[in-house]
Amino acid sequence: MKDNTNLTDYEVGYDIPAAIGMDEADIQTPCLVLDLDALERNIVKMGQFAKDMGMRHRIHGKMHKSVDVALLQEKLGGSCGVCCQKVSEAEAFVRGGITDVLVSNQVCDLAKIDRLARLPKQGARTIVCVDDMNNVGDLSAAAQKHGTTIECLVEIDCGAGRCGVNSTQAVVDLAKAIDAAEGLKFTGIQAYQGAMQHMDKYQDRKEKIDIAVAMVRDAVDALRGEGLDCDIVGGGGTGSYYFESASNVFNELQCGSYAFMDADYGRILDKDGNRIDDGEWQNALFILTSVMSHTKADKAICDAGLKAQSVDSGLPVIYGRADVEYIKCSDEHGVIADPDGALKINDKLKLVPGHCDPTCNVHDWYVGVRNGKVECLWPVTARGMAY
Amino acid sequence: MKDNTNLTDYEVGYDIPAAIGMDEADIQTPCLVLDLDALERNIVKMGQFAKDMGMRHRIHGKMHKSVDVALLQEKLGGSCGVCCQKVSEAEAFVRGGITDVLVSNQVCDLAKIDRLARLPKQGARTIVCVDDMNNVGDLSAAAQKHGTTIECLVEIDCGAGRCGVNSTQAVVDLAKAIDAAEGLKFTGIQAYQGAMQHMDKYQDRKEKIDIAVAMVRDAVDALRGEGLDCDIVGGGGTGSYYFESASNVFNELQCGSYAFMDADYGRILDKDGNRIDDGEWQNALFILTSVMSHTKADKAICDAGLKAQSVDSGLPVIYGRADVEYIKCSDEHGVIADPDGALKINDKLKLVPGHCDPTCNVHDWYVGVRNGKVECLWPVTARGMAY
Repeated sequence: MKDNTNLTDYEVGYDIPAAIGMDEADIQTPCLVLDLDALERNIVKMGQFAKDMGMRHRIHGKMHKSVDVALLQEKLGGSCGVCCQKVSEAEAFVRGGITDVLVSNQVCDLAKIDRLARLPKQGARTIVCVDDMNNVGDLSAAAQKHGTTIECLVEIDCGAGRCGVNSTQAVVDLAKAIDAAEGLKFTGIQAYQGAMQHMDKYQDRKEKIDIAVAMVRDAVDALRGEGLDCDIVGGGGTGSYYFESASNVFNELQCGSYAFMDADYGRILDKDGNRIDDGEWQNALFILTSVMSHTKADKAICDAGLKAQSVDSGLPVIYGRADVEYIKCSDEHGVIADPDGALKINDKLKLVPGHCDPTCNVHDWYVGVRNGKVECLWPVTARGMAY
Repeated sequence: MKDNTNLTDYEVGYDIPAAIGMDEADIQTPCLVLDLDALERNIVKMGQFAKDMGMRHRIHGKMHKSVDVALLQEKLGGSCGVCCQKVSEAEAFVRGGITDVLVSNQVCDLAKIDRLARLPKQGARTIVCVDDMNNVGDLSAAAQKHGTTIECLVEIDCGAGRCGVNSTQAVVDLAKAIDAAEGLKFTGIQAYQGAMQHMDKYQDRKEKIDIAVAMVRDAVDALRGEGLDCDIVGGGGTGSYYFESASNVFNELQCGSYAFMDADYGRILDKDGNRIDDGEWQNALFILTSVMSHTKADKAICDAGLKAQSVDSGLPVIYGRADVEYIKCSDEHGVIADPDGALKINDKLKLVPGHCDPTCNVHDWYVGVRNGKVECLWPVTARGMAY
């Protein structure tokens, strides 16, 4: 560790946690750290899987909101493009060089539709999900206004209970309307079963996906009967991608969390009963935190609280330490049970966040680390882009 | 509502939800909206209370992280300065014109201590909390290096179970060490009881604060016996400020949430058994959200999920609507029970967030609204400044 009290050594400012070339020990906390070896390994592995299965992989950019990670997924994992959830995210990815973007969500506000319709002018294939008939007319009007083409997927609610239509007939009706609409292209089906991804047991997840696959197959067959082919049948997440890949109906995966992993996903079990963070994927994302107070013999206080993570899916897990446990989270602090008094002030710990997506969304930077050194500093490009 | 499909009307970009002068109906969602009348009313009311009680009010800037709100609290509420939790937040407030800043937290990392010791050079009175003897030496060394004075409060753990020393003797020992250290000034005691603020019943909260007050009084008396006077005895939050104000021991309040209010605080009861958001304070902070899907008769999907708020203290409450209820929150979506089918796509709703502090921390902007128009657009100045 260098003397890091002189800021000019590193030019670390008030809002940047690290600088390239810095020793890992000097990173300012709390911040997000990426283990670049683990990240690259996860990306390569999923890319190879998709290739072996003859699937395209449209990586989910909503998880990391990072152009740099998306480009790495393209380079090392052969991803065909990016999914995201907001027009503002799509704009950020297109600005960063992604040329094929699916907003895997409904865009209904007229100002947002207008921005969506401009995206193809920046050289990006632009795809959006639709589950409402009035929305077809609004999308068509905007595409015509800008002289562009918006590709549309009809979203099916295949179990998550959120967006998406609920019947094959509704899929066909919307698809026909899209096909007939000036400025729009019917491109296929969106069918992501978001509600089963975190079910612990492999067999429970399979049962849910079997239902989803049957719905999607029925819709694809009915569309074919109307002369409407699906270029994209998209879905699949980190807890289900092997099911969709073996379905002979889906052709595009949309996995996100596999690249970073988190504590909640890590707990689900593969078909052999092993946790998926025990080999299938490696933990690549950590919240680096420091002990900042230790006035009780058996409790340490660290500097990563609710402002450094989301605890919606449970508390973070302290990586590689069986002797200490993160037991409570408040705005600015984490309480760590330290029964043996093993921790000292300024000790650093790596937390595996409970839920990666909303945790990444509170940070401005990823600090990429390899061999004990900071190798890169990547902005969370689309952070705050919620519109 | 104007035609807001032409961006140049307002110059709304991908990462800004509104523009000054815009109709409220045209604000892009999801975003934070401030009811400026309610905000100003809350600020004036707390300022008057503190004045009437002869207390100083050092507003808690960690809640809003906004220089603009802090300056308004100074102007309308007569606040004497700002509390915050991180050195990077303190830097942001000082840059914005706040000249009296307390980091109401421990600063132990040497690089952070170095930055803290530079702050007085920017014209700001700089105060920090201490609960560890080694920390005294590190703070002193940095202050001497920069030729500045860091004022120190000894933090007492008066019930929250986090930072702070646990006995009067420990307070006295630390205070004497601070008093003897070059570059440091012993300024008093920090005693914020964070764990009782959200207890529903007034009497339960009072019992907890009585314990805290007794601890603080004992410490103040012991310090006086050593010839050490406390310029600041600080504490008090939105759920307790009247207790500290009546204690004859505390002299500085540190309230934050009163200015914005949230659903979790709103539920606690005042001494007459009324909710505190029913008159004592008004809801000034809202998450504005739009309905974006409605494929089930009795459920609407809105665009404010975990990326637009923190649900650590419960789900948001839909303001002014008894007929619909926010019942589930996922990354990008909120599920709204709509039993009467009252909602339509693009309808807007105002959510009172469950917990204001970590909700503000995911947004980049406050959209200030009055009389149906956007009056101001304030950055969440210290967002992401966690270091």
